[in-house]
Amino acid sequence: MAAGKKKLRVFGLGGLGEIGKNISVLEYGNDLIVIDCGVAFPQDEMLGIDLVIPDFSYLVANHHKIRGIFLTHAHEDHIGSVPYLLRELSARIFGTRLTLGLVGNKLKEHGLSAQAELTVLNPGQSVQVGCFEVEFIRVTHSVADSVAIAINTPMGRVIHSGDFKVDFTPIQGEPMDLQRLAVLGDKGVRLFMCESTNVLAKGYTMSERTVGRMFEQVFEESPGQRLMIAMFSSNIDRIQQVLTSCIRHKRKVLFMGRSMITAAKTAAELGYLDIPKGLVIDVNEARNYTPQQLCIITTGSQGEQMAALSRMAASDHRQIVVTPSDKIIISASPIPGNEKMISRVINDLLKLGAEVIYEGMMEVHVSGHAKEEELKLMHALVRPQYLMPVHGEYRHLKHHKDLAVSMGMPKENVFLMDIGQVLEITAGDAKLNGTVPSGQLLVDGLGIGDVGNVVLRDRKHLSEDGLIIAAVGIAADGDGCQIISGPDIISRGFVFVRENDDLMQGARSVVIESLLDIRGKQSQDTQFIKTRIRDDLKEFIWQRTKRNPMIFPVLLEV
Amino acid sequence: MAAGKKKLRVFGLGGLGEIGKNISVLEYGNDLIVIDCGVAFPQDEMLGIDLVIPDFSYLVANHHKIRGIFLTHAHEDHIGSVPYLLRELSARIFGTRLTLGLVGNKLKEHGLSAQAELTVLNPGQSVQVGCFEVEFIRVTHSVADSVAIAINTPMGRVIHSGDFKVDFTPIQGEPMDLQRLAVLGDKGVRLFMCESTNVLAKGYTMSERTVGRMFEQVFEESPGQRLMIAMFSSNIDRIQQVLTSCIRHKRKVLFMGRSMITAAKTAAELGYLDIPKGLVIDVNEARNYTPQQLCIITTGSQGEQMAALSRMAASDHRQIVVTPSDKIIISASPIPGNEKMISRVINDLLKLGAEVIYEGMMEVHVSGHAKEEELKLMHALVRPQYLMPVHGEYRHLKHHKDLAVSMGMPKENVFLMDIGQVLEITAGDAKLNGTVPSGQLLVDGLGIGDVGNVVLRDRKHLSEDGLIIAAVGIAADGDGCQIISGPDIISRGFVFVRENDDLMQGARSVVIESLLDIRGKQSQDTQFIKTRIRDDLKEFIWQRTKRNPMIFPVLLEV
Repeated sequence: MAAGKKKLRVFGLGGLGEIGKNISVLEYGNDLIVIDCGVAFPQDEMLGIDLVIPDFSYLVANHHKIRGIFLTHAHEDHIGSVPYLLRELSARIFGTRLTLGLVGNKLKEHGLSAQAELTVLNPGQSVQVGCFEVEFIRVTHSVADSVAIAINTPMGRVIHSGDFKVDFTPIQGEPMDLQRLAVLGDKGVRLFMCESTNVLAKGYTMSERTVGRMFEQVFEESPGQRLMIAMFSSNIDRIQQVLTSCIRHKRKVLFMGRSMITAAKTAAELGYLDIPKGLVIDVNEARNYTPQQLCIITTGSQGEQMAALSRMAASDHRQIVVTPSDKIIISASPIPGNEKMISRVINDLLKLGAEVIYEGMMEVHVSGHAKEEELKLMHALVRPQYLMPVHGEYRHLKHHKDLAVSMGMPKENVFLMDIGQVLEITAGDAKLNGTVPSGQLLVDGLGIGDVGNVVLRDRKHLSEDGLIIAAVGIAADGDGCQIISGPDIISRGFVFVRENDDLMQGARSVVIESLLDIRGKQSQDTQFIKTRIRDDLKEFIWQRTKRNPMIFPVLLEV
Repeated sequence: MAAGKKKLRVFGLGGLGEIGKNISVLEYGNDLIVIDCGVAFPQDEMLGIDLVIPDFSYLVANHHKIRGIFLTHAHEDHIGSVPYLLRELSARIFGTRLTLGLVGNKLKEHGLSAQAELTVLNPGQSVQVGCFEVEFIRVTHSVADSVAIAINTPMGRVIHSGDFKVDFTPIQGEPMDLQRLAVLGDKGVRLFMCESTNVLAKGYTMSERTVGRMFEQVFEESPGQRLMIAMFSSNIDRIQQVLTSCIRHKRKVLFMGRSMITAAKTAAELGYLDIPKGLVIDVNEARNYTPQQLCIITTGSQGEQMAALSRMAASDHRQIVVTPSDKIIISASPIPGNEKMISRVINDLLKLGAEVIYEGMMEVHVSGHAKEEELKLMHALVRPQYLMPVHGEYRHLKHHKDLAVSMGMPKENVFLMDIGQVLEITAGDAKLNGTVPSGQLLVDGLGIGDVGNVVLRDRKHLSEDGLIIAAVGIAADGDGCQIISGPDIISRGFVFVRENDDLMQGARSVVIESLLDIRGKQSQDTQFIKTRIRDDLKEFIWQRTKRNPMIFPVLLEV
C-alpha cells in the first residue's frame, strides 16, 4: 500500500467546464494545496443566478490535509470563491501583496477575516508546506502582482502558469521572470498547467504600454472635450497610465463606479498606484471644472446594466450627464456574451452626441493573455514532460494540445481534462485515474446550491409563457365536489389581461366545466381534480394562443 | 394646400431601432409604396417572444394608397412580415423570381395566397405604380436574385440599395449592375437609402467565389473523412459551390434541416440551383455509403438550439451520429448575440472527436454586405443629394454619415432617422417633419401585440426569482376573518423545495400570523388582506434568502 500512495494527484474542481479556471488541487499523501479559488459568471440559461462557485465537498472532506491556498492574481475568476470556501473551513492563504490586499477587503465584507491566515509571498520567494515547496514567479498580466507558481513535489516539479502575457515593457515593476522559468525548465518539469485563453489568436499580445501611447494621442487630440475612459477596475497599470496622461495634460481625475473607487483606493494604499495629491477629485468638486479640465475613469466597459457608464448612457446617472463635448473611450474587449450589451451602451452614448472610441477603431485595449507565439515561447522555456492545458473552453484546450504536439510533445503526454478528473503522476508515468466529487454550485442571493436544474427549468418555463392560477373553493358532497367560491383566474407574464377579458372568462368556464364533468364520476381525490383542471386549461389555452403557461390549480376544500 | 401636398414623404416603420431594416415607405399624395417587409429577431430581454414585426397601423389606415410592396431579396429580415401585413390588407407584391418563389411558399403556409397578387419584376425591368416608376437593379448579396430599387418620383429619384456587396465574380448570373447605378447617378439622385451593416469594416468584402476555392481545398485535404458543411439555407450560391465540389470529388449530398431541404427544393425548381440527377440522396440511402462518399449540407450555423447541427453536436439527432471521421465546416459568422451558442456547438463537436473548421481558422465564409470601400464606391457612383443610412444600429448609421461627409457630402444632407420619423422632400429641399405611428409588435404563439412591457417585466421577474402562491380559505366572522382551509404554500422557480421544508413552514406561519394580526383591527376587505399577506411574506422571504419571488396571495372566502 505504501507504494500505492506514491502518487501525485492533480485535478480541477468546479467551474463551467473550464478546468482550472476556478480552482486546481495538488495532492500527495496527506498533503494538499489549492491553486486559485475563483467564481464563474452564470451562463445565459442560469436565470436569476448571481454567481457560480465550485463544489468544495472534496476539500471539506479533506480539510485536515490542506496546507495552503495559493492565489496567482486578483481577478474574480481566481479569488472570488475564497469567501465561500472559508465558510466551510479555515486556511492559510498565500498571495502577493496586491492580491492579498484585495482578498482581505473581500473577507472583511463577508465577515470572514478570522477564518484565514493571509501570508504574503513575493515573486521569487518560496515556502515549504507539507511535502510541497511552492515558489512564486513573476508574470505580467492585466492586473499587477500576478505570478506563476512552481511546486516542487515528491514526484517532481509542477508549474502552473496562472494568467499571463509576455510583456517585456510592463508599466511598473520588473518584466516577467522568463529566466527563472527557463532555469526550472532546464532542471526538469514533470507537469505544466498552462492557460489557454488566447491560444486561438495568432502572433503576440502587444505591451500594455502601447495602450498608454494611444491614450496620450487621444489626450492630445481632445483639448476641448471632457474625456471618459471605461475599463476594468483591476487593471491598475492602465489606471496609472491614464493618471500619467492626466498629469501631463492638466486634467483632474474623477473615479466613478464602486469597484473602481475601492480598487484605486486599495492599490494606492499598497503603493501600486501613484496618485499625486490634488489629482483626484470627487463628484461634487467636479462642478468647479470645465469639461476640458476633467477625465472620468469609470466602470462599465462590459455594458453591465448597473455600472456607471451604462447608467450614464441611459441618462439615468444622478451625477454625470453625457453631452456632445464628451469623448468616451471603452478600453476593453467584450467578454463573449456581452457584445450586445456593449453595443447598446455605445449606441446610446452616440445618440447623446458623444464621440465614442471602442474596439477596432483605435488600439485602446490590449489583452492580458498570451497569444500563440507567447505560448510557444513558454513551452520552449518550460519544456515539460506532461501538459495540462487549463483556462479555456474545450476548443481552446484542444488547440493548445495541437500547439504542443506541433512543437514535438507526444500526443499521449497531453491531458485534456474534465472537472473532477484526476491525473495521477508517479515516478514512472502519468495517467488519468478516477474522479473526485466536483461540479458547480449556483449562488442566488443568500442561497448556495439550493437552485438546481428543476428550479432553473421552471424559471425558463415561467420566463417564456408566464403562469395562470386557477383558484377554486370546493366542498365535498355526495356526488363529487361543489364549487363554493371562485374559480378565480390570475395570470402573470402571459397576456396583457385587460385586452384579453374573454380569454380569462373562457378559462373560468373551462374550470367550471371540468369540475362539473368530474361530479359523480370519480373520487374526490384532490390531486385527481387538480390534474384534470390543469390538463383542460392547458389544452384550452394552447388552442387559443399556442402558448403554454405554467398552470397552478389551487383547490381549497371546506 | 395644393402646394403643401407636393412633398415626397419617406419613413421607416417598426424594427428594433434599425430603420429600414424591416420596412420603408415612400408616399406622395395619394400614392404609397412599401420597400421590404421583414421581421426582426427578439432581443435578449424579450423573454418568450418568437418574432418582432413592425406596427402596420399607418399602412392599414392608408391601405387605399398602397400601390405595391417591393421586395429587394428573400432574407427573413426583408420578407418575414409579409404574411402579417397580408392579414390586415391585400396588396400587389413585386419581387424577382426567387424572392417571390420563397414568399409564395410562405403565403401558402399561412393560407394567405389569395391576399396577394405576386408580380415578377426582373432586374433591369421597371413598373409604373401610381406616380412612382419603380426599377429593379441587379446587386450581389448572400442570396441570389437580390436587387436595389430605383424609384422615379415627382420629387426626383430615390435609390434604395437593398442589401449588397460588390462581387465582380458572382457564382451565377451577371455581376452587380454598377453601370446602371452610375447612369442614374449621372442623371441625378435626390435621396440614397443605403445599407450600413458592414460600414465599420475596412476594405472590401471578398467574392463568394473565394469560399468555393476554400471548399475545394478542404475536399482535397479530406479524402478519408465525411464532410459536413453548416450554412444559411438561403445562400443558394454557396450551396451550388458545395455541389460542384461534391461532383468533382464523387461525394453524394445529403441535405439536413427543414429550411435547408425546402430552400434547395424551391431553388432547384426555379432553376437557381443545378442539381444533377442522383447527386442528392436521402438519409436512408446514406447508410449505403462510406463516410468519404458523403457530404452533409446542414442548417445550424448559428448554433440554434433546434437546428440539425446543434442536435448532432448534443448527440440528440436521430439519424446522424458525429464521429472522429467527420470534418465539419461552419460556413458563417456569428450574428451578434449568437457567439456563445456557436462556441458550445463547436466544443461539443470537438469532444465527439470531430475536426471543426470555423471562422478565423480558414476563409470558409465571406460576408454578404459591403464594407467601407464598397460603400464609398456606391456613393461615388450614385452621388446623391441626400443620404439616409439604413440597416444598422445607430453606431453604424453614424459611421456611415461620417463616411459620406468624408467624401464631400454636406453634414446637413445626411439624415439619421428614428423609426416613424418622416423625411419630407420637396423640389427645393429635404427636412425632417413629424412622425407616423410606428413601433414594434411582439409575436408570441398566435398572439400579435398582446405581450407588452408589463408582461415582459413580469416574465423577467419570474425568471429571476420564481414565485410563491399562498392560498388560504377564510370565512368572515365578527372580528375579521377566520382561517378555514390552508394556508397552502406553493413555490416554483424559487428554491428546491424538498430541501427547504422549514422555509415553507416559516412561510405558512407568516401567513397565519398576518391573518391573526388583522383580526379585529381592520375591515375584511380582501384586497387589504392580500396586500398584508404579500408584504409580510415578501419581507420574510427577503430576510431569509435575499430573494424576491413574485408572491400571489390567493384568498377564497366562503
